Amino acid sequence: MLFEKISVVNERFEIEHDRYVGIRDGRIIYIGAWRPSGDWGETYNGHGRLLMPGLYNIHGHAAMTLLRGRGENLSLQRWLNEKIFPFEDKLNDRAVDAGTRLAIAEMLRFGTVSFSDMYFFCQTSAKAILESGIKCSLSRGLTVFDGSDYEDTLAYRDNLDLLKNYNGAGDGRLKIDLCIHGEYTSSPKVVEAVARHAKETGSRVHIHMSETKTEHEACKARHGMTPAAYFEARGLFDQPTTAAHCVWLEDGDFEILKRKGVSVAACPVSNMKLASGFAPVPRMMEMGINVGLGTDSAASNNNLNMMQDLALFALLYKGSTGDPTVITPAQALRAATQNGAIAQGRTDSGVIREGARADLVVLNIDQPWMTPTIDLLTNVIYSAQGSDVCLTMVDGKVLYRDGEYTTIDIEKVKYETQKETDAILAQL
Amino acid sequence: MLFEKISVVNERFEIEHDRYVGIRDGRIIYIGAWRPSGDWGETYNGHGRLLMPGLYNIHGHAAMTLLRGRGENLSLQRWLNEKIFPFEDKLNDRAVDAGTRLAIAEMLRFGTVSFSDMYFFCQTSAKAILESGIKCSLSRGLTVFDGSDYEDTLAYRDNLDLLKNYNGAGDGRLKIDLCIHGEYTSSPKVVEAVARHAKETGSRVHIHMSETKTEHEACKARHGMTPAAYFEARGLFDQPTTAAHCVWLEDGDFEILKRKGVSVAACPVSNMKLASGFAPVPRMMEMGINVGLGTDSAASNNNLNMMQDLALFALLYKGSTGDPTVITPAQALRAATQNGAIAQGRTDSGVIREGARADLVVLNIDQPWMTPTIDLLTNVIYSAQGSDVCLTMVDGKVLYRDGEYTTIDIEKVKYETQKETDAILAQL
Repeated sequence: MLFEKISVVNERFEIEHDRYVGIRDGRIIYIGAWRPSGDWGETYNGHGRLLMPGLYNIHGHAAMTLLRGRGENLSLQRWLNEKIFPFEDKLNDRAVDAGTRLAIAEMLRFGTVSFSDMYFFCQTSAKAILESGIKCSLSRGLTVFDGSDYEDTLAYRDNLDLLKNYNGAGDGRLKIDLCIHGEYTSSPKVVEAVARHAKETGSRVHIHMSETKTEHEACKARHGMTPAAYFEARGLFDQPTTAAHCVWLEDGDFEILKRKGVSVAACPVSNMKLASGFAPVPRMMEMGINVGLGTDSAASNNNLNMMQDLALFALLYKGSTGDPTVITPAQALRAATQNGAIAQGRTDSGVIREGARADLVVLNIDQPWMTPTIDLLTNVIYSAQGSDVCLTMVDGKVLYRDGEYTTIDIEKVKYETQKETDAILAQL
Repeated sequence: MLFEKISVVNERFEIEHDRYVGIRDGRIIYIGAWRPSGDWGETYNGHGRLLMPGLYNIHGHAAMTLLRGRGENLSLQRWLNEKIFPFEDKLNDRAVDAGTRLAIAEMLRFGTVSFSDMYFFCQTSAKAILESGIKCSLSRGLTVFDGSDYEDTLAYRDNLDLLKNYNGAGDGRLKIDLCIHGEYTSSPKVVEAVARHAKETGSRVHIHMSETKTEHEACKARHGMTPAAYFEARGLFDQPTTAAHCVWLEDGDFEILKRKGVSVAACPVSNMKLASGFAPVPRMMEMGINVGLGTDSAASNNNLNMMQDLALFALLYKGSTGDPTVITPAQALRAATQNGAIAQGRTDSGVIREGARADLVVLNIDQPWMTPTIDLLTNVIYSAQGSDVCLTMVDGKVLYRDGEYTTIDIEKVKYETQKETDAILAQL
């Protein structure tokens, strides 16, 4: 495909106009002011359109679309214990398959090209992911409440299977990460075992960390150190790790994340909805910590629209710090794209440059709410709507365009999701 | 028009399904489970659609769409002094006309049926408002820095003209309010004069109040009382008043607003963007203060999408109070509709019941991000997109439907807005 006379977010996250961008074999082969020679297949008219890097949603639980809108306005503990956990106890492969496909459809529609997922029934979601064409760093949720060794858990056996059969599948689109759900849901020996397993297999790690004050303080009471210090001490951060939330970081924690190269998945919507607090994102960014963006699940968001969360990411921390100068539009867009790709170890993506993977989004910038254009990048962050995404491409393949999915039967997926949700609710 | 088998938000802000809703002479004439007899004109297929009250955007400055994206990531004072005020000094009727029409188009597209505006060149915006078919409570911004009497100001003469020629125009769609821009931009004698003028003319009043800590504290230093106490003491609250922002209210202020029936326009996005703080909205609502919702201008939002701000309204104050149980979906929707109508004194609107004005929005609820339906109202607040609005009707007249405006030439308006913006920027 050849994008013709299109505006482009370049690798410095500035906008260039009237560019030709040529895609071949899944990669960006040409970017320039002149039409390249050769046969590029379809020519895409870039008038009134912006080509930007695809969005990386680096923390979520895709199949929890099944739980969208269940148990609103409850305290976190009541929400989990009365609404979420009993439903999850009844999950099955059919439901996870439907819910995951729905999540992927929603993500593609709003410009997400890759996501990091932590959940169960991962062999089922792996198939859905591969069929959809999206990228994913998938981790099997690990909680060990009964004192078992990691190697005795079902999660361990799942991890062996996933690493063997799915890691790197789909030309590298699917990657398998290891997981510790959180400090409070596993023992130190399990954390150490996962750290060893990650090191042996060269895996990345995905965890929840310091999401709520209660969790953060309980860790200190239990171990005499913060969750960040605890995970570092157990060796978990020796492999590249993404820590979701990080709302309650203390002074020394910033140094640990920086030193160990831990990426943070900021989840501003979920943190507001569950009243967890406002993460110290500007300070993390100032320290040079790699901060990406996550929606968290549709149960606590309640959608998977990264364009909406990107706007909020750029707004919220101004409010929480009282400083309107923090987080520029370019910083916000970089967080939602390149920083996410870095967190997933996909350094050939997340940015538009020759040679990079063609993981791209086309935005309609010819809209009333994008007028006037005084500063286009500012409009993209604060004014654009998720619905302005008119094309989402992964590895050069168009997966969503102008209301149509190329790999997903959306009516079937909606129907199946509602049916499976109703079936589970009927058991409760 | 007859809506057929549509889901409806009823006047208790609960959802009923498969209803017939008949519109005639600008009002809702029939709501029921059976098809009414008679000729209703077009029948609207309600399958996969929700009929909800139109949204009320009760604080903004419409023509500031011209300033969308100008001067990002600056401190409030630098933003105002270096970017906003110099631009506004060059405003003219042509620019305000274009910017106002663009704002109205954007509001209609995302479900706003009525807005409260405070700005200059009001005769120009009044004409644009009347031609568009939207409702508006329009107030001429009043600032008096030079010690003049109110009656010596251009604003006073504008107000006389506006009240005489525009108040109640368009079958009541346009109403003229009086204005005090803020405590810090007028003297006590001017506040008292506007209070008298409002009382003589039966006008409502629109003000900014306690938006920033600096402003709030300076009032206390100057007058020995909070802005709320100051305005009450000067008699301004003897007429129905809408106070925008109210971020820094103190204990006694809540009592004043409650006692005087002052409505609050919460502006969560603008308050975040300008780092003004988080308003104590849950406490206001608990006290029974009438809280509505405003976008503020496109310069500090940066769009006029009330669906987006409604979601944020329901989310943000959970985060700022640390209590996930505050502001239910029904409370949020009521704030953005009925409470706004009350603030504007339009008690025959803002709610779907027989006899009420047909100020309505149709939402497409058959979307991936609205699936599954466990709690539809929750999906409407947290999951719906502004782009899911497929019809906006004011006084029974369709003003927006499926991508088309019936009263606005949107391509011309976009062109004119860009042209006028560029012309002003060229003078700076």
